[in-house]
Amino acid sequence: MSVPELFLGIDIGGNHVKMGFVDSGGTLHDFQSYPTAEWRATGNFTQRLVETIAFKLINHKDVKKVGIGLPGTITKDRKIPIEITAIPELNGVPLWAILTDALPHIKFFLENDANAAALGELYYGMPPHPDDFVFITLGTGIGSAAIMHRKLFIGGDGNGMELGHIVSRNHKKLEQNTGKQGVLDLGAELLAKWTGPTVIARDQPISATRMVVAAEHGDEFSRSVFYQIGEMIGEGIVACVRILDIKEIIIGGGLSASFDYVMPGIMNICQFYLTPYYLQKLTIKKATLGNDAGLLGAASLCHQETNH
Amino acid sequence: MSVPELFLGIDIGGNHVKMGFVDSGGTLHDFQSYPTAEWRATGNFTQRLVETIAFKLINHKDVKKVGIGLPGTITKDRKIPIEITAIPELNGVPLWAILTDALPHIKFFLENDANAAALGELYYGMPPHPDDFVFITLGTGIGSAAIMHRKLFIGGDGNGMELGHIVSRNHKKLEQNTGKQGVLDLGAELLAKWTGPTVIARDQPISATRMVVAAEHGDEFSRSVFYQIGEMIGEGIVACVRILDIKEIIIGGGLSASFDYVMPGIMNICQFYLTPYYLQKLTIKKATLGNDAGLLGAASLCHQETNH
Repeated sequence: MSVPELFLGIDIGGNHVKMGFVDSGGTLHDFQSYPTAEWRATGNFTQRLVETIAFKLINHKDVKKVGIGLPGTITKDRKIPIEITAIPELNGVPLWAILTDALPHIKFFLENDANAAALGELYYGMPPHPDDFVFITLGTGIGSAAIMHRKLFIGGDGNGMELGHIVSRNHKKLEQNTGKQGVLDLGAELLAKWTGPTVIARDQPISATRMVVAAEHGDEFSRSVFYQIGEMIGEGIVACVRILDIKEIIIGGGLSASFDYVMPGIMNICQFYLTPYYLQKLTIKKATLGNDAGLLGAASLCHQETNH
Repeated sequence: MSVPELFLGIDIGGNHVKMGFVDSGGTLHDFQSYPTAEWRATGNFTQRLVETIAFKLINHKDVKKVGIGLPGTITKDRKIPIEITAIPELNGVPLWAILTDALPHIKFFLENDANAAALGELYYGMPPHPDDFVFITLGTGIGSAAIMHRKLFIGGDGNGMELGHIVSRNHKKLEQNTGKQGVLDLGAELLAKWTGPTVIARDQPISATRMVVAAEHGDEFSRSVFYQIGEMIGEGIVACVRILDIKEIIIGGGLSASFDYVMPGIMNICQFYLTPYYLQKLTIKKATLGNDAGLLGAASLCHQETNH
């Protein structure tokens, strides 16, 4: 495009609603964060959202598009949140219609937050940007999304790529085993059996961050925890690769600091279950967008032709 | 379309190459089967295929489209087989170009056989035909395919939906656990521990067909084998449903005679791992095309606008 556009990105999360303007180069301006709980406490979260957007846009008459990432499922036409566990009063609210009625000169794009983050990686992440990739966020839960032929893959009814909810080991969902709690549970279980030396204290609650730092310093116990977590993430990646035939995997999220220590387990599983057709092209790398991935992702929704 | 068209369908398998003309109502005419081994023994499988097609078409000048199902992977442009385990001399052969050069007035459509069978179910199966469904064939291996928005879903690089190759229990692939050999292995393992009555003989090799018949007659041992097989198939279905957000599952293939006995295990797993968003619409039913599914599927490829 010849004239650089400015988009408003909004990342609605369980703890904060983050807003900021994003230019075509992916630079964030006028960042602001609002406590989700305060908006919920007013009894009208949607109204607070509309008002804050209107206020933000007063000084930005040039902004014509607003992208919003939501932490949950959404109707196939991308107009109505279905199940937003963290903010259930949004469930079934005709959010797109309310926003468009209130601000008719603005084009709104609603999307699941993991999908938005994947699109953000495509538009604002570090090149090269493959046409097809699976994006996985490791954090409290496991989020995932896929870009196929440079477009968001949303599946049949609009809410595909719930990788964290496929079946994993021990009759648990993948995100129960490999999310933050899964790391802590496995850490505690293995520590009780660990007989070698480790810098992890046995008389204190385990911390995931502490284990990442310990792994960096060569702690064998911490590395063995992340190795097993990696194997389970690897099993999820095999499912994605086999079902979607996408061979580029990008890993982001808070727990992606453990990337170097989950990778051996991931690769062991991939090499065991995948054939040369997949392995020759298989690339697993770390996401390039950091803390602002959610917000940049929300803004990147505005690059789409239509709101699906 | 106003003028009914006749298509030539060709189902290339490890044992037989099956050919037949299929009319717009899905009725098969002039069926013929050729032993794959004999064609391979000539040293030029491709040439035998071209000649047989040419011969078939002499008396059918009205046929302008030929659909071919192949038992393996294929390039994204649907022109060159990549890995056909049963007929490896086809790997890398520019099959579409050879066929089109030899018979330039004919439009050829090549496709993976499980994909073709799914498309056959869409065009010739018993209505209602949902716009989105996952098709699973239970047999020696596990084949699968997905129809999304009434089109074949082929994934990023063209060979998605290899459900039989995702990770299943005990460090095995799903098709190792739930294909014919998996049924026999689990049957033998459980029989050794089974203390109750059963009509299955303990001093003879187990037969999958025998167990299906026994299950029909209420044999608790056989039912418990299929229940566990069903649970593992169910785990694969959960992966498909969560990744693709498709809620209609159609099950075909030789082992689908066990449908009624794998269903309780499948449903147990689905109800445990899926939320109401999925379960409200989840439908699992038996394929309606029988023995001719492969051939009808191959012919149904001709309904597509282009060969991808």
